[in-house]
Amino acid sequence: MKFNEVLENVSIYEAGKPIELVVREYGVKPENVIKLASNENPYGTSPKVIAKIQEIAKNMFVYPDDSMFELKEALAKKFEVESENVIIGSGSDQIIEFCIHAKCQKGSKILMAKTTFAMYEIYGKQAGATIIKTDSEQHNLEEFSKLYKEHGADVIFLCIPNNPLGECVDKDDVYAFLQTVSPETLIVVDGAYQEYASFKDEKKRIVPKDLMTKFPNAIYLGTFSKAYALGGMRVGYGIAQADIIQTLYKLRAPFNITTLTLAAAIEALKDEDFVKSCIAKNFEEMTRYEEYATKKGFEYIPSYTNFITIKMGDKFVSKVVAQKLLERGVIVRDLTGYGQNAIRITIGRNEQNTKVFEQLDEVLENLK
Amino acid sequence: MKFNEVLENVSIYEAGKPIELVVREYGVKPENVIKLASNENPYGTSPKVIAKIQEIAKNMFVYPDDSMFELKEALAKKFEVESENVIIGSGSDQIIEFCIHAKCQKGSKILMAKTTFAMYEIYGKQAGATIIKTDSEQHNLEEFSKLYKEHGADVIFLCIPNNPLGECVDKDDVYAFLQTVSPETLIVVDGAYQEYASFKDEKKRIVPKDLMTKFPNAIYLGTFSKAYALGGMRVGYGIAQADIIQTLYKLRAPFNITTLTLAAAIEALKDEDFVKSCIAKNFEEMTRYEEYATKKGFEYIPSYTNFITIKMGDKFVSKVVAQKLLERGVIVRDLTGYGQNAIRITIGRNEQNTKVFEQLDEVLENLK
Repeated sequence: MKFNEVLENVSIYEAGKPIELVVREYGVKPENVIKLASNENPYGTSPKVIAKIQEIAKNMFVYPDDSMFELKEALAKKFEVESENVIIGSGSDQIIEFCIHAKCQKGSKILMAKTTFAMYEIYGKQAGATIIKTDSEQHNLEEFSKLYKEHGADVIFLCIPNNPLGECVDKDDVYAFLQTVSPETLIVVDGAYQEYASFKDEKKRIVPKDLMTKFPNAIYLGTFSKAYALGGMRVGYGIAQADIIQTLYKLRAPFNITTLTLAAAIEALKDEDFVKSCIAKNFEEMTRYEEYATKKGFEYIPSYTNFITIKMGDKFVSKVVAQKLLERGVIVRDLTGYGQNAIRITIGRNEQNTKVFEQLDEVLENLK
Repeated sequence: MKFNEVLENVSIYEAGKPIELVVREYGVKPENVIKLASNENPYGTSPKVIAKIQEIAKNMFVYPDDSMFELKEALAKKFEVESENVIIGSGSDQIIEFCIHAKCQKGSKILMAKTTFAMYEIYGKQAGATIIKTDSEQHNLEEFSKLYKEHGADVIFLCIPNNPLGECVDKDDVYAFLQTVSPETLIVVDGAYQEYASFKDEKKRIVPKDLMTKFPNAIYLGTFSKAYALGGMRVGYGIAQADIIQTLYKLRAPFNITTLTLAAAIEALKDEDFVKSCIAKNFEEMTRYEEYATKKGFEYIPSYTNFITIKMGDKFVSKVVAQKLLERGVIVRDLTGYGQNAIRITIGRNEQNTKVFEQLDEVLENLK
C-alpha cells in the first residue's frame, strides 16, 4: 500500500531504554538496575501525589474531564495568566506537534539548533517542512539571527536550557533575538528544564507571562515530566496568547490526558516544596559528576538541567561505553545519534551516582 | 498570526460532559450525579486492576516502556497474531488519527456513514481530506459500494457496531463489500464495541486475524475504554499487517501511553471474567430501556453496544430533554450535533437506570 510521501523521510524517535529491557536482555535484577537515561526525577514522585492516585484509582473507568478545568485553573494561577492562555498536552511533546502542524506544511521552514531535542525535527519532517539548523552544536543566537535573516522561518525552536547538551542561553539574549523576529513566525520556547536553570542562575529564567506579553507570537512550553516527577504520566503545557492556544486546540484529540494524570498533575502543583528540595539535591550531586569528569580528563558541558553530557574524547567510543554500562545494569544515553561522541547521564540520587562512578571506573579500565 | 488553512474548517469535538461540570454548574452533589453520556463501563474498573495501580503508583516518575513490549505481547496472544501486527494508541482515537495522516493529504477522500463517530471527520478535515458520506443515517453497505465505485476513497471507515446509533452490520456483508475495494484503499474497521456486538449476535463478530489475512489493506481497531472499563486511561489498539503497522508507528509520538495505563491494560486483559459479566448485565439492563421507550411511544435503534439511542419524535426536542436531565444530575448525550433529534444513553447499573427512568418521567411530564 502506498502511504503519504512525507513519511518516507520520517525516522522513529529512539527513547531511553526501559528497565524491563535490561532485566530481559542482560538478566540484571530489577532492583539493581540504575536508569539514568531519560532525565526523570530520581527522587521519585511526591508521596502526596502517590497517595492521591491510590485514593482515586477506582475512577479509571471514567473518561477524563476533557475541559481540564481544574488543572488549567491551577496552571493559570501559578503563572498569573488566564485559563484561555493554557493548553495541556500529553507531555510538552504533544504541544510541539500541535505547533508544527498549526504552522507548517510541505515547504515550510523550521529553525533550530544543530543539537537539540530530536522531536522538533521528527514532527517537522512529518509535516513535510524543511529543517534549518545552526552550525554550532550548542545554541548560538547570532547564528539563529543570521539564518533567520537569510531564510526566514515559520517556526523557531529555542530549547532553554537545551536537551541533550544542557547549556542555557540568557533570557536577555533570547529577548534581543526575538525582537528581530516577524510576528508571523511562531516562536517556541521549550522550558522543559526551566525549573533547574532558573534555580541555578536567575539570568536564565523565562517567565511565561512576560514572554507572551512582549512577544505575542511566542509560546512557552513546560512539563511535569522532569522536576515535577511525573515522567510516566505524560503531561505538559503551553502558555501563549489566546489566539494561538485556540488554534492549537483544533489539533488536540479529545481526552489526550488520562483521568489519573490530571489528578496527579493537580496534586503535584500543590507540593512545590518537594520540587524545590529535589532541584537543590540535583545540583549538589551534579558537582560530583563534574569532579569525576575532570579527574578522568573528560570534557563536560556545564549543565542547567538534571543531566550532564560528558564527552568521551578520542580515547573512548560513547556507544561502547554506554553499552558496557547497560550490560552492568546502568542505563545512560549514548549521544551518537545526535552526532556526539558523548554520553548523557541523568543526575541520580547520591547512592546511585556512587554506583555509576564505580561501574564507569571498571568499564573505562576494561576498555583501555 | 496566520495558521494552516485547513484548520479553518476544523471543528472541535464535543465530549460528554464531566461530572465535575454538573457539580460546579448545577450544585448537584457528586455522589448524586449519574453519568451515562460517554459509554463507560458503569460497573467500574475491575478490582484486580485497581489493586495493581495502587501497588505501582510509586512508579509514576518513570517514563513508560516505549516499546510496550508486555502489552503488545498480551494483545498478540489474545488475538493470535504477532507483536509486529499490533500498534497501541492513546485510545483507538489516536490510531484513527494515524490512519488518516498516513494516507491523506489535501484532496484525499474518506468514505464513511452519514452518522458515525465524529472523530473520523474531524481528523479527516485536519488533513485537508474530502469527506464522502452515505445518505442513510445507519451503515448501508450498498450505499458505501455505490459511492466507492463513483468516487473511490483513500480511507474507508466502518464502525461495527456503530457509534452513536448502535446498529451493526453483519460480518458477511462487510466482507462482501471489502472484496470490491482496491488494495490501495485503507479500510478501518472500528471495533470499539465489538465485545458487545459479538456477545449479542455471533454474525456480527469480526476476528482481527481473519480480517487482516483476507484483507491485507484493512486495520481492526479495539479499545480498553468500553468493556474493559479503562475509559479514563486512554488506551486502544490497531491490528493489521506489519507494513501498515510500521507506517503508523512513524506517526506515533514516543511515550503516547502512560506508565500506569500500560500496567492497567495488561492487568485488565487477565480479568476476562469481569468483562464478560459486565457485558451480560449490560444486555439485561438494555431490555429495560427498550421497554421504557416502547411504553413512552419513542422509537429506539436496536443496539449492539452499551448504549441506546432513543428518538424524541415530534413531541420533544432532544436538546431540551438532555439539558433538563443534566440539571437534575443525569448526564446523557444529545445527538443534535449529529443531525438527530435523539438522546443517546449509556446503559447504566440497575439502580442508575431506575433513577434515569424516574427523572425522565418527570422531565417529559414537565415538558408536555
